[in-house]
Amino acid sequence: MKMLEERILKNGRNLGNGILKVDGFINHQVDPLLMDACGKEFAARFTNVGATKVLTAEISGIAPALLTALALGLPIVYARKTKPITMPDQVFLTLAPSHTKGRTIELIVSPEFIAEGDKVLIIDDFLATGQTILGLVRLAQAAGATVVGIGALIEKTFDGGRDLLAPVGVPVEALAVITDMQEGKIVFQSFAR
Amino acid sequence: MKMLEERILKNGRNLGNGILKVDGFINHQVDPLLMDACGKEFAARFTNVGATKVLTAEISGIAPALLTALALGLPIVYARKTKPITMPDQVFLTLAPSHTKGRTIELIVSPEFIAEGDKVLIIDDFLATGQTILGLVRLAQAAGATVVGIGALIEKTFDGGRDLLAPVGVPVEALAVITDMQEGKIVFQSFAR
Repeated sequence: MKMLEERILKNGRNLGNGILKVDGFINHQVDPLLMDACGKEFAARFTNVGATKVLTAEISGIAPALLTALALGLPIVYARKTKPITMPDQVFLTLAPSHTKGRTIELIVSPEFIAEGDKVLIIDDFLATGQTILGLVRLAQAAGATVVGIGALIEKTFDGGRDLLAPVGVPVEALAVITDMQEGKIVFQSFAR
Repeated sequence: MKMLEERILKNGRNLGNGILKVDGFINHQVDPLLMDACGKEFAARFTNVGATKVLTAEISGIAPALLTALALGLPIVYARKTKPITMPDQVFLTLAPSHTKGRTIELIVSPEFIAEGDKVLIIDDFLATGQTILGLVRLAQAAGATVVGIGALIEKTFDGGRDLLAPVGVPVEALAVITDMQEGKIVFQSFAR
């Protein structure tokens, strides 16, 4: 998606070690118009998968997932990383190693909101190692739901997440695909736009 | 706002001790159409305050603040509760006692995104004790910005937050105002709709 790639080139920063700083428009300050365009793009790409819910992980997945859900007219559920007092005692919980946080995080979903028969579209900000998204897949499957698609704003192909997610057997869409961040570069996969 | 009050009565639950469970439509599962309507309502109420940024706190403030910002065409900044690796060393940080979490939380904003001259509209999910919102006010003021308005989806008047915020001297708007949650009740302030 040209609009997102251009924004990454303009306001993103390669901090080294594969870390891309996008907190000026995605995950600290957020550009709602950009996120709205991304949400509509995801909605168009996943219009035929029959999703009944959009699932993401707090915190930075919320903005793109919310606007995808708005475009599709579906509820969104965000997995919590800590269990709030309003959540029932019995929950679905999985552990996912976090690359950027350097530790294992919990992902928690209430059985009230993901259930058998749900067709789940997973949306997140990054597809890097794929571990967070795979954790969301496990949560959905534990609830008896079916994952029907996976979308990420930005994919870093060199972290290998797409291979990890291949066994899930659903379409995986990324709006900006970065193939190389060595030596301060940000290189996008070339494809017909 | 009638739509929000009706949804609270339909899907909210009074858990006792002043705790309102709204995780079916606001802060775990989110109804994007309801949040969009709330965002438009905030935008209408604050159309004349001259805001340049919307500020909220992660996590549950993000959805209403994002859709308010979308309606106003403004960037949104969400204060982080932990400092990500992409944030500069020098940040604005304040401590706020959290009623629902039973502990003090950190609220952190990067000086890259709130600056002198900014006119900040604060949007959050709840106005209860007002401590989180007051923390956001301190962050904005520390950055040299001016707070121009405060909005919350749900106000619980019996927690006294409105009085705490009165010295800020800006309009405080809540879309659903709850005056009593004793004995399992959910009582809204009556006003002309």
